[in-house]
Amino acid sequence: MNLAAQPLHLHPDRLLPAEASQRDIARRLYAQVAALPIISPHGHTDPSWFAGNAPFANATELLLVPDHYVFRMLYSQGVDLDRLGIPRADGSRAAVDPRSAWRVFAEHFHLFRGTPSSMWLNHVFHEVFGLRVRLDATTADYYYDRITAALETPAYRPRALFERFGIEVIATTESPLDPLEHHAAIRDSGWTGRVITAYRPDAVIDPEHEQFRDALHQFGELTGENVFGWEGYLRAHRQRRAFFASRGATSTDHGHPSAATANLSDDEARKLFSLVVAGRADAAQAELFRAQMLTEMAKMSLDDGLVMQLHPGCFRNHNQALFARYGRDKGADIPVRTEYVRALKPLLDRCGNDPRFQLILFTLDESNYARELAPLAGHYPSLLLGPAWWFHDAPEGMWRFREQTLSSGGFYNTVGFNDDTRAFLSIPARHDVARRVDCAFLAKLVAEHRMDEDEAMEVATDLAYRLPKQAYRL
Amino acid sequence: MNLAAQPLHLHPDRLLPAEASQRDIARRLYAQVAALPIISPHGHTDPSWFAGNAPFANATELLLVPDHYVFRMLYSQGVDLDRLGIPRADGSRAAVDPRSAWRVFAEHFHLFRGTPSSMWLNHVFHEVFGLRVRLDATTADYYYDRITAALETPAYRPRALFERFGIEVIATTESPLDPLEHHAAIRDSGWTGRVITAYRPDAVIDPEHEQFRDALHQFGELTGENVFGWEGYLRAHRQRRAFFASRGATSTDHGHPSAATANLSDDEARKLFSLVVAGRADAAQAELFRAQMLTEMAKMSLDDGLVMQLHPGCFRNHNQALFARYGRDKGADIPVRTEYVRALKPLLDRCGNDPRFQLILFTLDESNYARELAPLAGHYPSLLLGPAWWFHDAPEGMWRFREQTLSSGGFYNTVGFNDDTRAFLSIPARHDVARRVDCAFLAKLVAEHRMDEDEAMEVATDLAYRLPKQAYRL
Amino acid sequence: MNLAAQPLHLHPDRLLPAEASQRDIARRLYAQVAALPIISPHGHTDPSWFAGNAPFANATELLLVPDHYVFRMLYSQGVDLDRLGIPRADGSRAAVDPRSAWRVFAEHFHLFRGTPSSMWLNHVFHEVFGLRVRLDATTADYYYDRITAALETPAYRPRALFERFGIEVIATTESPLDPLEHHAAIRDSGWTGRVITAYRPDAVIDPEHEQFRDALHQFGELTGENVFGWEGYLRAHRQRRAFFASRGATSTDHGHPSAATANLSDDEARKLFSLVVAGRADAAQAELFRAQMLTEMAKMSLDDGLVMQLHPGCFRNHNQALFARYGRDKGADIPVRTEYVRALKPLLDRCGNDPRFQLILFTLDESNYARELAPLAGHYPSLLLGPAWWFHDAPEGMWRFREQTLSSGGFYNTVGFNDDTRAFLSIPARHDVARRVDCAFLAKLVAEHRMDEDEAMEVATDLAYRLPKQAYRL
Repeated sequence: MNLAAQPLHLHPDRLLPAEASQRDIARRLYAQVAALPIISPHGHTDPSWFAGNAPFANATELLLVPDHYVFRMLYSQGVDLDRLGIPRADGSRAAVDPRSAWRVFAEHFHLFRGTPSSMWLNHVFHEVFGLRVRLDATTADYYYDRITAALETPAYRPRALFERFGIEVIATTESPLDPLEHHAAIRDSGWTGRVITAYRPDAVIDPEHEQFRDALHQFGELTGENVFGWEGYLRAHRQRRAFFASRGATSTDHGHPSAATANLSDDEARKLFSLVVAGRADAAQAELFRAQMLTEMAKMSLDDGLVMQLHPGCFRNHNQALFARYGRDKGADIPVRTEYVRALKPLLDRCGNDPRFQLILFTLDESNYARELAPLAGHYPSLLLGPAWWFHDAPEGMWRFREQTLSSGGFYNTVGFNDDTRAFLSIPARHDVARRVDCAFLAKLVAEHRMDEDEAMEVATDLAYRLPKQAYRL
Repeated sequence: MNLAAQPLHLHPDRLLPAEASQRDIARRLYAQVAALPIISPHGHTDPSWFAGNAPFANATELLLVPDHYVFRMLYSQGVDLDRLGIPRADGSRAAVDPRSAWRVFAEHFHLFRGTPSSMWLNHVFHEVFGLRVRLDATTADYYYDRITAALETPAYRPRALFERFGIEVIATTESPLDPLEHHAAIRDSGWTGRVITAYRPDAVIDPEHEQFRDALHQFGELTGENVFGWEGYLRAHRQRRAFFASRGATSTDHGHPSAATANLSDDEARKLFSLVVAGRADAAQAELFRAQMLTEMAKMSLDDGLVMQLHPGCFRNHNQALFARYGRDKGADIPVRTEYVRALKPLLDRCGNDPRFQLILFTLDESNYARELAPLAGHYPSLLLGPAWWFHDAPEGMWRFREQTLSSGGFYNTVGFNDDTRAFLSIPARHDVARRVDCAFLAKLVAEHRMDEDEAMEVATDLAYRLPKQAYRL
Repeated sequence: MNLAAQPLHLHPDRLLPAEASQRDIARRLYAQVAALPIISPHGHTDPSWFAGNAPFANATELLLVPDHYVFRMLYSQGVDLDRLGIPRADGSRAAVDPRSAWRVFAEHFHLFRGTPSSMWLNHVFHEVFGLRVRLDATTADYYYDRITAALETPAYRPRALFERFGIEVIATTESPLDPLEHHAAIRDSGWTGRVITAYRPDAVIDPEHEQFRDALHQFGELTGENVFGWEGYLRAHRQRRAFFASRGATSTDHGHPSAATANLSDDEARKLFSLVVAGRADAAQAELFRAQMLTEMAKMSLDDGLVMQLHPGCFRNHNQALFARYGRDKGADIPVRTEYVRALKPLLDRCGNDPRFQLILFTLDESNYARELAPLAGHYPSLLLGPAWWFHDAPEGMWRFREQTLSSGGFYNTVGFNDDTRAFLSIPARHDVARRVDCAFLAKLVAEHRMDEDEAMEVATDLAYRLPKQAYRL
């Protein structure tokens, strides 16, 4: 390693307010929640890691290739994805040495200054791998070697990390077509880590999804239902939801382009579905079908108790050329303006006052926090607000979430933190950031005499631990 | 009472900045405005309170049942409105003891942590009723008894509280159909409290209002005009505006779904009105009629000098089942995205440069503060910005209002604070919060050397007292 | 002068955080960037000032008449523009003594409290003119005389000020029809000040511009191309762009109503253009033509390397009566909601991944910072974000820009500061404000242990100096 490299700090007061009176309060609040178990009710880790418990390959494969937060920033500054070894849509991959990809990343690490990626990665480097110099061009090889070597040791196997991270429960996300074999294997293995699934049916619900036709056929084969008829299709969903629940699922997840819901008559719904399965639904009918299916999912939740999550408002695969070459989830998804008040009314008129129903709303359009979402959640008993999400899960975004939802929604119509990540090693870092930001926010309220410290203590614990368990029925 | 209960504080520095240099400045600014008389130019108190001066019934009837800020939060966490004794649309009411309703409220009081309701209520508890323990399940009865006993004493009659609160003037809000008998009674009583009305004609202007047909008939009977003809209808408005002005009104108030205005020819307007009175106006025509009526109201303001207020952008009665059972104003109104630039142009082209005209704009869509509203108010001589309103009148919302309107609008195109409340006892608390937040905001400007302290002193006084009087022509 | 007038301060810590630990860091950061040369890559100064180097006339003509930030605020509080001597659309002007106009301004100077205009003007008063009392009614004449006298001295000629201000390069903005004679004169004069132009073709691109027909004819005469045919029209653009580049231009600038882009086939574009030149394009076709022309400009940038700037989202000339009397640019332009994600897709699909292309995006709709713009710039290699602009270039607006773009865009997808001003004397003040705000923002990150101070030093220098040079290819 380069002895002239800058030291890597992880200051115990990071993200706490600089002003002394608030910092002292924030420290006391944080001290109480820092070590609480991690509740991770929504994310995208791979259950095969925990089923197979095989070692991760190397620094690049673990930390760079799967993290589209990271390589989108590199791409934005002219770094070709092939230089990073990002897999292409056709399954091929540029012949790039993982070490040389890592060097490219290290040379550009200054681009992440001030971003959440830099905080999360530095946390991983410092806490998980014990590194004490900053990553840059001069330390790239040192990093690569240290990390890759560590990954070969038992302490860095997935289950060991899961336990070291203090994860009480983690939810993965699977398609209805997934056999959930890894979840079964985990359960059967005798390992006590709680890894549950969540029901994410977009591919069999969205007529515009590129895999919809194939997915629908598989859905039929898997369930033995006639999924090309409306009743059979709904029965297939019920059957798979029950199967998912038997593998631990307590929630469903829906990633729609908008928050539109509908409440058609059975007859209208049946006709619409027949257009959909015939491949004759136009864009408006596809949207209406997705809208109707949200209400169908809500109705099923009344019976099976699965908590519903709605993540709307993303323009997927915005970069045509990049999508053609590299496929989905390559950092080219862009948030769009989203409307909730009119969009959700059909579903809420049907299920919104039912005590059995719980819908957790997310947004990528922060202009809705104070205007639409907090007022909705501060009224409807079935609505809760998911945390600042994806492009908004930086400290500033989390702070805006609290500042803009507190007045009408309070703390108790929110559900604590979601890490929503594929980057397994960053999970403790992400939860730590969320806890620090919430404690900093609460410390300001205490320092400005809007809340007593004992109340803030209770709220901090609720946000870090109790509310996510309660909201997700864990 | 429960001796183990937590003490209730009302810290003298509450809402002032925690950082010492800013806090010192803020204290000095606040000291100058804290005791200024209250100007309450827009609100929803009941004039019969001041006319009759009868005692309030009990804690629940006074503090819980009328406050939809409060019971909407309880409802959002699963508390049935019947348990709180909220009146139903048919006039009936669950047979619930007010004390037991109060206990439900007390048990859930932690839900309000950090919200403006908690600040306002604690202010009322501490300052108005002298309570020194926090409200929770263990102190519910103690609170109920203390408050209810106090209300029986002369010091808690409406007029005594009005005087104790230092209210210089308060405006109520009435329909054109209101005989304003309570305002007459107040005037005739010899009591010197200044309680004025404001002209709120929505029910006789909005073809989609459920009372429109009936209201129009009464409007005709009351004025002796043929209100089913366009000219008679306008004359009826002029007559009632004059009557309201004679009862002290200095303003009109308009709560429209959008900010749309129109400037039709007389002929077009007459034809549109004939559709409206015939009940044949569709949704777009109803919107156009409301839009035209805003311009008609503006034109009348040129003559009679009433200041016009526009409060657009709320989806009323969003919860269908709740509306059917409990009726209007039960916490189910939700803000929607609102546009001003194109919407206001017809009215502004007609009246916007006229020195006789004053239009105070409000919004529930904060994304307009910096983008549309401050630039409009920072240009048009007739436009002023109303304060952070309804869902946005928490300290954070007030701060956002100042931060986002200052650059283009300055302080002098704003009108000070509106409490806009039915919760009479909370009025001093609400004005106090607004004064504290403005002083905190100014203190930051002084501490960062953007303004001298003597200038900030003048601005603080202007915002608390002089600007509302001037803007509302009081 | 009035001896009782208040002193005018310009505190060395202005705009730095009041909290001591952050202020100390901010001071160190600011000390390093305070004296860096000014890079002004986008603005509206008049090149004839630097070509002719004639003295400015008086305080009113220099500081009040050209600054629509200033007189819009006066107008909003009832000051007639004729009292300020603002020129009318017909070229006439009220017979107003410039001194009396200055007095009106001085009497109303309190209206600017807290606004950026007050900071910029006080900076000019203090630093450029050495004034040490505040401007108000009692000091108006003193100010007028001091400033007007100074302007007669050599030290206040345009070139002397340019050098005193430490301007390394400044870009003006010209129409394709401009002969750029002043730029030629500057170059030929032997003076070493670098004053370059920028290509702003709105008048020959926007079919709805009131000068479009005339401009198109001149465009043809000037270039010798048949600009009424699609190919000739495009050749004329290429020719003028090359001419502008030869006069130092490194950028083009486009002020469109929306961010819409299109990528029509040659045949479609040719047909659309024939409608446009025939004066038969409706509003939608005019919009489509502007949209297509953005893509044409982008394609030309691939060849000639001019950086493209897009400034969308303003409703121009909103006040009908004021426009009729006083014409354009009189403070009646109002921002409107703007959409980028769908709007930019055609252009980005065509050029967005090309390393030769650089597009700098601006917005007047801040709700896009975190939702659309930072995610777009944090992905596309061709996109960079212009700074907080126009209505949003106050300290609060600059802070929001950083807070809302940092997470997804980082610092390195932004381009430093633009002053975008006609107010030449305010240029150092504006850059100074931007540097202070960036240092304050960085100091918070350092104080909260999200970045080391050496990293912040580097970022501060990059934002103040290196990034604007790089982004604008200067």
